[in-house]
Amino acid sequence: MDYYSSYISKLIEQLSCLPGIGAKSAQRLAFHIMNMPKEQVEQLAGAITTARARVRYCKNCYTLTDEELCPICSNPRRDSSTIMVVENTRDLAAYEKTGKYDGVYHVLHGAISPMLGIGPDDIKLKELMRRLQGDVKEVIIATNSSLEGETTAMYISKLIKPTGIRVSRIASGVPVGGDLEYIDEVTLLRALEGRVEL
Amino acid sequence: MDYYSSYISKLIEQLSCLPGIGAKSAQRLAFHIMNMPKEQVEQLAGAITTARARVRYCKNCYTLTDEELCPICSNPRRDSSTIMVVENTRDLAAYEKTGKYDGVYHVLHGAISPMLGIGPDDIKLKELMRRLQGDVKEVIIATNSSLEGETTAMYISKLIKPTGIRVSRIASGVPVGGDLEYIDEVTLLRALEGRVEL
Repeated sequence: MDYYSSYISKLIEQLSCLPGIGAKSAQRLAFHIMNMPKEQVEQLAGAITTARARVRYCKNCYTLTDEELCPICSNPRRDSSTIMVVENTRDLAAYEKTGKYDGVYHVLHGAISPMLGIGPDDIKLKELMRRLQGDVKEVIIATNSSLEGETTAMYISKLIKPTGIRVSRIASGVPVGGDLEYIDEVTLLRALEGRVEL
Repeated sequence: MDYYSSYISKLIEQLSCLPGIGAKSAQRLAFHIMNMPKEQVEQLAGAITTARARVRYCKNCYTLTDEELCPICSNPRRDSSTIMVVENTRDLAAYEKTGKYDGVYHVLHGAISPMLGIGPDDIKLKELMRRLQGDVKEVIIATNSSLEGETTAMYISKLIKPTGIRVSRIASGVPVGGDLEYIDEVTLLRALEGRVEL
């Protein structure tokens, strides 16, 4: 029912398709937008279309970027012989924020999930294998610690091992600052298995 | 720092200006938009600009609408002698959803708040007083039950009473289905004061 305006209803409909935005938040956002200055609204809409139109995959690591090569791949100070494999660009950003990793990345854009019908060909895995023909010393698998992430990690390691390139997996265990009492059993067991000599 | 693309960063910045959207949600939304089909992204951006450009105030009740007169004001079956005063169009929509109110509305677009420096001239109050020169029998004040809403209700009732038009305030008390034990003292006292004979 249109109590106000069909344009607002259409906007609410569009906004509620976004992840994490339900009917109520969409309504609140729509009315907020109605009260924003026109120029600001145009900036917002412009940022949406420009980003979607201009952004593309880095031809090397497949992260989202403006240029043919992303700032990381085109930086000569990054060690291109170490490749960290992540599920998506957000995970890359998370590791970049640590400021301590000086290798390069490879973004899979997904993880293998038989449940969702996502196979090895649906993620950027062939593209990773192609990169390994260059001078690569280590592949660090940093997919999520979920079922899909683990499956993907196993799959990739089996694929790479025969090539003789070192394959590693980021450690899984108790998060720093984590209180043992609130941590699930699987994580606790992982932390135990992965214990390191002091 | 731009780990990915300046266009994505700009989009994240724009999105995080919206109410209830923090840095993390903005990032998640931006990456979701990057993975949406181009046409769908254009529809979203279009809905934003179109709504903002086309929507205006109803010249009678000041709700947000597409036409000169909103569907409610232009509906001859609505009783235009009863005006419900609300703070914003969302509140109007909430009452419309009940389907039981057949009067018309007046949208103030705010509430008096000395704290925020919002005075009677900053809301659509003069516009309400002008409407009272017509054939109006009752004004129902349905501003929020907050400090600002109550202040506004008091102010409006004082302004209207000398005209002889009936002024009422929606009841405040225990919400239907509400569990007394979880309801604040102020509401409990209101419910007691507003008790009705059985």
